[in-house]
Order: sequence, then structure tokens, then C-alpha cells
Amino acid sequence: MGYKLFYYPGNANLAPHFVLEELGVPYELSLVDRTRNQQKDPDYLRLNPNGRIPTLVDGEQVLYEAAAICLHLADRHPQAGLAPDPGTRERGELYKWLMYFTNTVQAEAMIYFYPETRSADESHWPAIKRRAEERLGGWFDNVEAHLAAGGPYVLGASYGIADCFLFMLGRWGRGLQRPPRALPAFGRFLNLVGERPAIRRALEQEGLTQPYF
Amino acid sequence: MGYKLFYYPGNANLAPHFVLEELGVPYELSLVDRTRNQQKDPDYLRLNPNGRIPTLVDGEQVLYEAAAICLHLADRHPQAGLAPDPGTRERGELYKWLMYFTNTVQAEAMIYFYPETRSADESHWPAIKRRAEERLGGWFDNVEAHLAAGGPYVLGASYGIADCFLFMLGRWGRGLQRPPRALPAFGRFLNLVGERPAIRRALEQEGLTQPYF
Repeated sequence: MGYKLFYYPGNANLAPHFVLEELGVPYELSLVDRTRNQQKDPDYLRLNPNGRIPTLVDGEQVLYEAAAICLHLADRHPQAGLAPDPGTRERGELYKWLMYFTNTVQAEAMIYFYPETRSADESHWPAIKRRAEERLGGWFDNVEAHLAAGGPYVLGASYGIADCFLFMLGRWGRGLQRPPRALPAFGRFLNLVGERPAIRRALEQEGLTQPYF
Repeated sequence: MGYKLFYYPGNANLAPHFVLEELGVPYELSLVDRTRNQQKDPDYLRLNPNGRIPTLVDGEQVLYEAAAICLHLADRHPQAGLAPDPGTRERGELYKWLMYFTNTVQAEAMIYFYPETRSADESHWPAIKRRAEERLGGWFDNVEAHLAAGGPYVLGASYGIADCFLFMLGRWGRGLQRPPRALPAFGRFLNLVGERPAIRRALEQEGLTQPYF
């Protein structure tokens, strides 16, 4: 196959990294050293003009956007069953949750981590971060209600790419005053998914250490 | 089929509305009157707990998230060719652009239109809106570069759901100091897509008037 995933430990590469490990296909990892701002190097910008992480090279194709990479990998390996078949009701549910995860929860997390991107005035940043933490808590509460009503996974009984993505988001929320691990169903989800060997391998390969969420 | 699309004129329902008109399948529209805050009514929240617009009812399934609805409709009607087949290189490109449109451009537009959601301090809102407008301009520049290199549509020669979504975003940017219509390739795209009968019908059905972008 020849996949290559450009990553920085703990960044949005986590979700596609979990998917690659779950698929068990050959791939290599390539570090983009954010401490040296390598995501803005000309060589990297030629692959990903947005200068964001991750990027996946799949033969001659270069893909970015974590949620897109997860969908693409699931489609490339349908036999792994990490996404429902297109055209089914379940596939629609996958789209719904994955879009919510990326355009609402992930987007909110970006503001929580980088409030400085939202105003030129430094004195605004604490209030912006505080508001992002409140809203992130609300989005996680919606996930909690969904998992409590129909878990253990995002789509119910079957594990897949939506769970890989949600586990990443749950990890990102670990510093909140009310973190996802403290919510009953979300906490069970994180423990359950966190025990998967593929998830463990990916976390360890990125050099991350306990507690993972 | 029995689709029902809950909408408010010009909101994120535009993209799925364009797709429904392009498909030519039977559906009905149902107004959610935001001027009376109906998106927070208990009846609507039972369909869409996020209280956002749009929502699509497809028989017994209830879907939300505009990008998810577009993907779902394309999968339900593969013969219409509004999305490349799953597993292909082109499908990966669709995912990449649609994710960028929803988690970056649409998310930024939400801050541009509703800066009050980002800080409890009213005095911060003008700076937050100004910053969102600058960033939105940068995201539109990326789209411009892409369309200039390989248009006329998002995926090149073939029209589809990514274009329905992008036309909506281009319309939302019409109040910017440097609107999408003023960018050469993006302007051509808006004129080209804006001439499609399906697009015209949807805009008129929502009661929108010229200029559309």
C-alpha cells in the first residue's frame, strides 16, 4: 500500500493513526516537528498548503483533514468494517456524528487551545478561552447523552472510525475542569476504547504517556 | 422517498436544498422560524437536540449537519453522480474539501456572523469579528488557488455536492470587504453554479433575492 502519515505527538493525526493500526496495513510515520515549526516548511506546505497536521500520503495521492483521512481509509479497506456501507442508514449516522465531531467539537477545541487566533488583543484571550471551555463542555454533554442512550460506541454495537475520532477528542478534553472521563458513559467509552491494542500501540508510537485521557 | 428538509432562508440548509433540487427527488420544505426562535422549540429539539438548522427527515431517519446530509443524499442516489464512488481517489478528494469547508470555512463563518458566542464581554466582539473576517478571507484565498489550478468545479470537471456546499459558503461571504465573487476563479465558479436551474429554484423557494452572492 505505502501509506505515510505525517504527525506530531497527540495532534489530529491521532484519529487516522488509530485507524491505520486498527486496519493492520503497512504504513510509516513521519514526524513534523512543531517545536521547530516544520509544519510551515516549504517542503511540508507543498504537501499540505494549509500547514496543518496531519497529512496522509497514499501512493500518488496526498490527503489532509483528519476526518477525511479516516473516511478515505475506511473506504479503501471496506472488509475491515470500520464504516457502514454507503447508502445505508448507519452510514448517514456516521456522517452526522463525524461532521459534528470535526466542525463543532474539534473546531471548539482549536479555540480552547489557541484563543490567540481569535482576537488581535491579548487581553481578550482569557475570556475567549473560558467561553470555549464552557461550550466544549456542552458539546461533550451532547456526546454523553448519545452514548448513554445507545452506546457503547458512537454507532451503537459496532466499533469504527467515529470512535477513533471521538477517543482523540476525549483525550484533548482531559484538562477541562469537567473532563470527558468524568462523564459516566463517555468515561466508560474512553476506558473501553483505550484498552484496544491498536489504540495502545498508536499512543505509544507517538511517545505519549499515561494518563491518556 | 418522503424527504423533509427543515430550513430557514439562507441558512446551512442551502447546501442540502441545492442537492435535493439537483437530484429531482420528491421532498417537502418546512420552515423553522428563527425570528420566533423555533429552532429551540421542544418539538424541533426532539428532532435535532443541537437546535441548529437544517434537519433532514428521511423516512424514519432524522439527520442533521449540512455536510452529512449532502453526503447521505449523494450515497442514497448514486446514479445522480453527485459524489465519486467510495474507495476512489476522487472520493478522498471530496472528503478533503468537504471537511475543510465545514470545519474551517463554515466554522469561521459562524464566528464572523455570531462573534457574541466567543466571549462573554461585549467589548471583545468587534475585534473577534474583524479577526474572523481576515481569516475567512485567507480560507477563501485557498479555495481560489485550488479553483484557479484545477476548476471549474471543486473536483475539477464534474459537478457535485462539494460545489453545492461551496456555493453556499461563497454566498455567506458576500458581505466581506473582499468577497469571494471578487476573486477571479471563485467568481467564475459562483457565476457558473449560480446559473444552474436547480440552484435558482432552491434560492427562489427560500424567498431569497438578487444579488445571490
